[in-house]
Amino acid sequence: MTSNELFEQIKKKESFLCIGLDTDIRKIPQSLLDTTDPVFNFNKEIIDATHDLTIAYKPNLAFYESLGVNGWNSLEKTVNYIRYNHPEIFIIADAKRGDIGNTSNLYARAFFDAMNFDAVTVAPYMGEDSVKPFLTYIDKWVILLALTSNKGASDFQYMSENEEKLYERVIKKSSNWGNCENIMYVVGATKATMLADIRKIIPEHFLLVPGIGAQGGSLEEVAKNGMNRKCGLLVNSSREIIYAGSDNDFAKKARESAINRQKEMAMLLKKHL
Amino acid sequence: MTSNELFEQIKKKESFLCIGLDTDIRKIPQSLLDTTDPVFNFNKEIIDATHDLTIAYKPNLAFYESLGVNGWNSLEKTVNYIRYNHPEIFIIADAKRGDIGNTSNLYARAFFDAMNFDAVTVAPYMGEDSVKPFLTYIDKWVILLALTSNKGASDFQYMSENEEKLYERVIKKSSNWGNCENIMYVVGATKATMLADIRKIIPEHFLLVPGIGAQGGSLEEVAKNGMNRKCGLLVNSSREIIYAGSDNDFAKKARESAINRQKEMAMLLKKHL
Repeated sequence: MTSNELFEQIKKKESFLCIGLDTDIRKIPQSLLDTTDPVFNFNKEIIDATHDLTIAYKPNLAFYESLGVNGWNSLEKTVNYIRYNHPEIFIIADAKRGDIGNTSNLYARAFFDAMNFDAVTVAPYMGEDSVKPFLTYIDKWVILLALTSNKGASDFQYMSENEEKLYERVIKKSSNWGNCENIMYVVGATKATMLADIRKIIPEHFLLVPGIGAQGGSLEEVAKNGMNRKCGLLVNSSREIIYAGSDNDFAKKARESAINRQKEMAMLLKKHL
Repeated sequence: MTSNELFEQIKKKESFLCIGLDTDIRKIPQSLLDTTDPVFNFNKEIIDATHDLTIAYKPNLAFYESLGVNGWNSLEKTVNYIRYNHPEIFIIADAKRGDIGNTSNLYARAFFDAMNFDAVTVAPYMGEDSVKPFLTYIDKWVILLALTSNKGASDFQYMSENEEKLYERVIKKSSNWGNCENIMYVVGATKATMLADIRKIIPEHFLLVPGIGAQGGSLEEVAKNGMNRKCGLLVNSSREIIYAGSDNDFAKKARESAINRQKEMAMLLKKHL
């Protein structure tokens, strides 16, 4: 998928929402637990209820891996279900992978060939040769961790040499490894004011912004500081939407929650675009 | 497994070898490709041929994930096979995971509960809360990336603030999150002289050292600079051993290659311990 195709979808749906399919078997309504594939069935209902409101879905791999082989089955079925029924939707493997070159190559194959994701999140610690194998696929994306939304972000990401912070170095260096058609960056919403500074380094790149909702970031601040002329933002919400309800009406509640976000986003698009 | 149990095994086998089960379906002998589970059958033969020479096995997850659900099946069978037949052997999930706290928690569950690995490699970029969930398991280990053996290591790991490099900060900070009974560090053999400096920061911790063999590091240099009074080293070799042969005698060739390494290690243990 190209950045223009993403932007077209954003304009059409008046949304820049990404829904995190962080599907925790312990939080699935009882009625689904008796089915043969509770995780997939949960995802399917969430997708059916929200696909017209969201630009992207982002399963976090940890939730699937923790279930072993069954989890991988549920994940594959989820990706295929989205792909088949809603081919316009961008699908992100939130995997935070990264290894030496020949090994990253295999991760790329796992997510882009075996599973047909559009994008995969990658950790930058091991540098260029750990990222580049993901960039050789046409119309596929690396979403590189830059400034994360968690508390531990301050342990290393703010380290500074010659007034350049580690996350800034990650962005500057890596933006030369690819371009704004194959690299996006993770920038946490909890650091919205830093978004404006990051925009000075990479005005055109898409940013994937976690940390709205459960983690406390403000959507308005993110839009104000981070939006560019093609929106350039995918703002993720996971728990706030998929666990809006905990009973049999969970999909209805998820839709209501997603509608609230989408309305807010429609307004912000009108204001800032 | 405790560090003393590891050390007992090292003394008994006169080896500090870790064999990387980076099993690539494209490199498996033709005769195995016709079996129902070529990857597991390859691993089984390698394990049968080398278990008395090695302290640890380290499957790199990328090789299994690239095969989807089948790959996870092969991986689970491999771990169970080692666990059942050679309970003394340390099993490392080379996964390089790391995510926000509640998500890392699930990765820990995936590797320590669902799969019964002894250790998992973790990437430090996201800081303390991304690492700590792995440290709550008794007798299980985090192996944190510090100084990797690839070319891209120099992109960010050498960044320096107040004469402290990023990889040094990673080691110093994280050594307070756990202790030398639940954290090891990845330190590439291609930087053997830096091992001596790292030993000044963490004299007691075990180090997992990749980069011997195919990547060009010297085992003698590693032992000289990195060994402590309990050995404190697990030196990994993957391709050099498991692909020593490419025909039906691959297991025999792998054993010969592992014996060469083990003999060299026996000599180095005698010299430095």
